[in-house]
Amino acid sequence: MSRPLDDILVLDLTHVLAGPFATSQLQDFGARVIKVERPGTGDDTRAFPPFLQGESAYFAALNHGKQSITLDLKSAPDRAIFDRLLARADVILENFRPGTMERLNYGWDALHARLPRLIYGAVSGFGHTGPEAGKPAYDMVVQARGGVMSITGEEGGPPVRVGASIGDIVAGMYLVQGVLAALVARNRTGLGSKIDISMLDAQIAIQEHSLAITTATGKPPGRTGARHPTITPFSTFRASDGFFVIAAGNDALFARLCITLGQPQLAADPRFATNEARCENVHLLKRMIESVTLARTRAEWVAILDQAGLPTGLVQNMAEAIADPQITARNMVLGIPPRAGGPAFMAAGNPVKMTGLPDPAPRGPAPSLDGDRAAILGWLDQPDSPSTDAD
Amino acid sequence: MSRPLDDILVLDLTHVLAGPFATSQLQDFGARVIKVERPGTGDDTRAFPPFLQGESAYFAALNHGKQSITLDLKSAPDRAIFDRLLARADVILENFRPGTMERLNYGWDALHARLPRLIYGAVSGFGHTGPEAGKPAYDMVVQARGGVMSITGEEGGPPVRVGASIGDIVAGMYLVQGVLAALVARNRTGLGSKIDISMLDAQIAIQEHSLAITTATGKPPGRTGARHPTITPFSTFRASDGFFVIAAGNDALFARLCITLGQPQLAADPRFATNEARCENVHLLKRMIESVTLARTRAEWVAILDQAGLPTGLVQNMAEAIADPQITARNMVLGIPPRAGGPAFMAAGNPVKMTGLPDPAPRGPAPSLDGDRAAILGWLDQPDSPSTDAD
Repeated sequence: MSRPLDDILVLDLTHVLAGPFATSQLQDFGARVIKVERPGTGDDTRAFPPFLQGESAYFAALNHGKQSITLDLKSAPDRAIFDRLLARADVILENFRPGTMERLNYGWDALHARLPRLIYGAVSGFGHTGPEAGKPAYDMVVQARGGVMSITGEEGGPPVRVGASIGDIVAGMYLVQGVLAALVARNRTGLGSKIDISMLDAQIAIQEHSLAITTATGKPPGRTGARHPTITPFSTFRASDGFFVIAAGNDALFARLCITLGQPQLAADPRFATNEARCENVHLLKRMIESVTLARTRAEWVAILDQAGLPTGLVQNMAEAIADPQITARNMVLGIPPRAGGPAFMAAGNPVKMTGLPDPAPRGPAPSLDGDRAAILGWLDQPDSPSTDAD
Repeated sequence: MSRPLDDILVLDLTHVLAGPFATSQLQDFGARVIKVERPGTGDDTRAFPPFLQGESAYFAALNHGKQSITLDLKSAPDRAIFDRLLARADVILENFRPGTMERLNYGWDALHARLPRLIYGAVSGFGHTGPEAGKPAYDMVVQARGGVMSITGEEGGPPVRVGASIGDIVAGMYLVQGVLAALVARNRTGLGSKIDISMLDAQIAIQEHSLAITTATGKPPGRTGARHPTITPFSTFRASDGFFVIAAGNDALFARLCITLGQPQLAADPRFATNEARCENVHLLKRMIESVTLARTRAEWVAILDQAGLPTGLVQNMAEAIADPQITARNMVLGIPPRAGGPAFMAAGNPVKMTGLPDPAPRGPAPSLDGDRAAILGWLDQPDSPSTDAD
């Protein structure tokens, strides 16, 4: 019991992705997370496919190990329970539309006056300030508006969505940073902080390259498919059975690549002699390289290039990734302990490996809706118990 | 002066992207960051285009406000300086190949024995454990191998790289989480922790949807361009002057969309009556919607749909994004104060808005190589000074 957040209780009013992703990480750091859900349906993702035995694999992946209680924050008896939870909580997180918590009289100002140590974290589409504060957003909307779709996709093709939901995910990661920073601050000041994360803000924050190019040159970058915009050859290539990556970042690596491919004359060809020339003739060079690489499998090429000290890697789908020996050795795909008779789901492991954190993290099954009510109420009735797991 | 990390000194041995991105965020939380660079060339990104007055806009975006000193960690006099810095530091971060710090006798075990409060954070391609520990990796290699390229791109087209460097960026964000969690833990235990972040691990952690589908069904998801894989219509659409997004997530929103587009009959058409039917006929529905949307500009459509309460948004390039009133109102694109006579660069703002953190953050220009040597050495000669900025 020496995890960084072992004594921290998080009341989690969030649903769907950004918030539950954040509280899942706080849990991996040792926090106890009580999911306060809407009576009747709970978190929308309980109804997201795919299902096993009628239960959502998606919900399980994001919520395993949390506890669940349903509360109607407009009903007096449920508010009384919620108030007792708040009195013991270190952190409350929500992803309602801005203004919702104020209407319930649980806004930051009201809570901070009552509970000065409580940390309050909010994640929303556009944040709590600015002309569009209060408007909802989806992952796809902030990916579109924040610019990442404009630089993702084939050269000359339409904009493409990033396959991972980075609109939500990155915002959730910044929420975790804010909560942890607020815990550091509270150790000194004794006071909680309010954290206000906007999904759209977070998209700008992660595009350092596009932002530097645009602000320095006035010209926003466009799409370049699977190749590096200014280094060649640095992209995917076709093998006989799929794609792999070659990342030859300088002339020496390019010369070594040409020898390894059995095409030493390419390195001396003036069309490919410098990175600038290779960038100008990028499509021709790609065809010439693929005329060789199509003759073998991608696994053969990765082994050959790896042996030659050339940066390379398979393009893997998720089924291949979860069987990758490096990924399994790092405990990055874990079985979730099932409830008795329940389905066996899997989830991502904790990417923050650190001393004092057991890896894999000990986390239980995903909670059934309101499944921990009795345990939570019993724990609240114990006046001096610490905020560790009730069950 | 009440920022969460106001009293924290970070020695930053990292270069290029994941590490400097992490220390930039720690700086926004109040930390002082001293960049320890290789004599002669320093951080590789000092030579990355684009340039203004011969200085890299890319380097400036990631390193403004940090201090720079060059040290050769194989030379005795420089090691003596480094040892004095270590004695005052709270955090040391590096992104060398695993094993490099051990060979310099600055590995975690050696440092922890000498300086038990010091927090040690490492970020590398594959981490410090597992069969491929020690191998270098690039952003493109981990995007390929971690699976995100397999779900990014056009339906039926080749895999596409995510335009933002999320291989590095997400790993850097997890490093920040680890450092903050270690600071929380140190407040209780008095001891530092070692953090070991793998870029490949981080890719698995951010793909909750693909992982849930793959592990529950055995079938990895593929590419769907700019549309949601299981909700229709939820994608980009063409207007007369570019692309915008419509996210009509249920039957009621679809019916409202049809009315708003002046095509109420579409909602009654059995080919589009349910989400399942709409997914089956997704390409036909897209053509029918675009036959209407091509008649007006995307700004007109976004205004019309917004007015009707339909989730929508422009697909913006970075030049458009940095002029977006919501983004500017949130201080997400900032001018970096120039050095006297130096170029005026810009950078992303801090996406973590919280009480106690001034926004925009007060950060100075990017350091010239070794530009703070005199100030740092002078500060080291003051025996009892706190670890706040020397200049």
